[in-house]
Amino acid sequence: MQGVGGEFELIDALRARIAAAGAADSGAVVVASGDDAAITLADGATATSVDALVEGVHFRMPPFTARQVGHKALAAALSDLAAMGAHAGEAYVQLGVPEERDDAELLALGDGLAKLASRHGVAVVGGDVTRAPVLLVAVTVVGRAASVDDLVRRSGAGAGDLVVVTGALGGAAAGLQLLERPGLAEALGDDVAEALRLRQLEPNPRLAAGLALAATGATAMIDVSDGFGADAGHLAAAGGVALNIDLDAVPVQTGVPELAATAGIDPLDLAIAGGEDYELLATVASADLERATAAVRAVGAELTTVGEVVDGEGVALRGSAGERPAAGFDQLRPRQAPDAPA
Amino acid sequence: MQGVGGEFELIDALRARIAAAGAADSGAVVVASGDDAAITLADGATATSVDALVEGVHFRMPPFTARQVGHKALAAALSDLAAMGAHAGEAYVQLGVPEERDDAELLALGDGLAKLASRHGVAVVGGDVTRAPVLLVAVTVVGRAASVDDLVRRSGAGAGDLVVVTGALGGAAAGLQLLERPGLAEALGDDVAEALRLRQLEPNPRLAAGLALAATGATAMIDVSDGFGADAGHLAAAGGVALNIDLDAVPVQTGVPELAATAGIDPLDLAIAGGEDYELLATVASADLERATAAVRAVGAELTTVGEVVDGEGVALRGSAGERPAAGFDQLRPRQAPDAPA
Repeated sequence: MQGVGGEFELIDALRARIAAAGAADSGAVVVASGDDAAITLADGATATSVDALVEGVHFRMPPFTARQVGHKALAAALSDLAAMGAHAGEAYVQLGVPEERDDAELLALGDGLAKLASRHGVAVVGGDVTRAPVLLVAVTVVGRAASVDDLVRRSGAGAGDLVVVTGALGGAAAGLQLLERPGLAEALGDDVAEALRLRQLEPNPRLAAGLALAATGATAMIDVSDGFGADAGHLAAAGGVALNIDLDAVPVQTGVPELAATAGIDPLDLAIAGGEDYELLATVASADLERATAAVRAVGAELTTVGEVVDGEGVALRGSAGERPAAGFDQLRPRQAPDAPA
Repeated sequence: MQGVGGEFELIDALRARIAAAGAADSGAVVVASGDDAAITLADGATATSVDALVEGVHFRMPPFTARQVGHKALAAALSDLAAMGAHAGEAYVQLGVPEERDDAELLALGDGLAKLASRHGVAVVGGDVTRAPVLLVAVTVVGRAASVDDLVRRSGAGAGDLVVVTGALGGAAAGLQLLERPGLAEALGDDVAEALRLRQLEPNPRLAAGLALAATGATAMIDVSDGFGADAGHLAAAGGVALNIDLDAVPVQTGVPELAATAGIDPLDLAIAGGEDYELLATVASADLERATAAVRAVGAELTTVGEVVDGEGVALRGSAGERPAAGFDQLRPRQAPDAPA
């Protein structure tokens, strides 16, 4: 069927972009998009997660480019697989497209998504394009493990375990501040400012670190998407335990304290409540800490101990400056003010 | 983490509704939603498809109730699994929610989705709720088969095969006409009119018929979602063949000709170009027709031969009234006029 409208041509063009990125190299894929469903074939356990980015809620354009929207939508979904310690397998993408977006922008979105997929060996094997009042990208990702026991759930934290986090926090929230108030960059070096902006615009899912933590005995794991405080709360609730966090130990990204000082905000608001850093928050037995730290370092990330698991419930956030509540991002409130300056 | 906002409570309430419907009875599910990803465990082949319904594009409320939106979103996705001849397994649901929608409406949407899931033994094991400018439901469905060869692709039609379709066509498009112009119901009996409306509002995926057709040797299969003409075109293109369709043989739903006459439109516009009937269009070797017809009838549906596969390309639609082009629905044009009377 040729020429019945714009959908089929656009889908074909998007598919070609994504296939051209060499993304369809997952051994599990039998038939990729173009049929009613994609066909895959795999043994073992499967982890599946869904995530959506909606224009005006999760991003605005500008400052986001279409390419960055594609990147971030897939990154946020893959981060959930990282938090399971799963090998990334396939992705399915649903695009909602406003009439005023031109095809070049959508192809750029596909390019951003395909490039990240290729970097992680993810095959984009299915999708759907529809009209929508704002740009939206809903991604389903499928990950795999040899057995169910190789996947790390949120619920396994036990009293006595240590609480660890990969990388550094607060960068994504600081980057958002910087994009909304460019004058804040004056207190920062150019490289530091750009790293903060990219932390917001092009986050990287910690897939290798997630595999490393799973392989070295992490008892529970979650990705830092809603905010460190809120996500720590999810781990505590799922495990039926309490988490005591030492705020002085929380790793904060370079430039975040300086930006916070200029902006007149508490840097811990960015690091604890900001969210979207897509680092991994995990619990490990103290006997496994050294091995876990080495394994995470071997894939290029740092692991920092930020607290301990105790009997009880909830999250206590205490530091030399006192105690603070563990607030986080509510998906039903806009993360990015629609009317903020770009 | 309790009380950080509206999202977590709403998700918990939705999850409880869906779990209460007994939907989590798929043997493959190890961990349902509540973790970073759902965990499943299954042998054999997997078919995965994504589908989205967007308010103002695919439905308006009214005439749709929230319950019907939930039903139809899952039905449309499951119809893709039916078209593969797959057993329905799990579903993942992404909800976009405008601020003005109250929680009761969203729970009704969950109820509609859960009830259909339960009817087909589908486990709703994952999801995501976010703010959005209009109500939107994006569904990923996963189906299974013992082996890849048990799944029916779009591409297998060969010259000499017969073209068959389940059920009757045109009902969904006629139902939409009826919902937009209630006066058209005067020419119809109450039961006939209500059946047409429900065909639009609460379509049923032909999962059992899809399995029956796969088991009896269907060579290619697709669901009628874009429109019979367009979907026949997809089959022809995928198979590198031509389809000759006898328009006089196309089964048309009761009431469609009467409604079309009152509305002053061609009933074939509804049956061939209307779409959303979610019947199955398949090709079978003539030697398999009797067995396929019996198998489909055994699960409560009729199978009608509407044409044949020949060498060539494209779809020819010919009947006693002449020939017509094979037009269909373009996902990038609104299906339902946003300003039409309810």
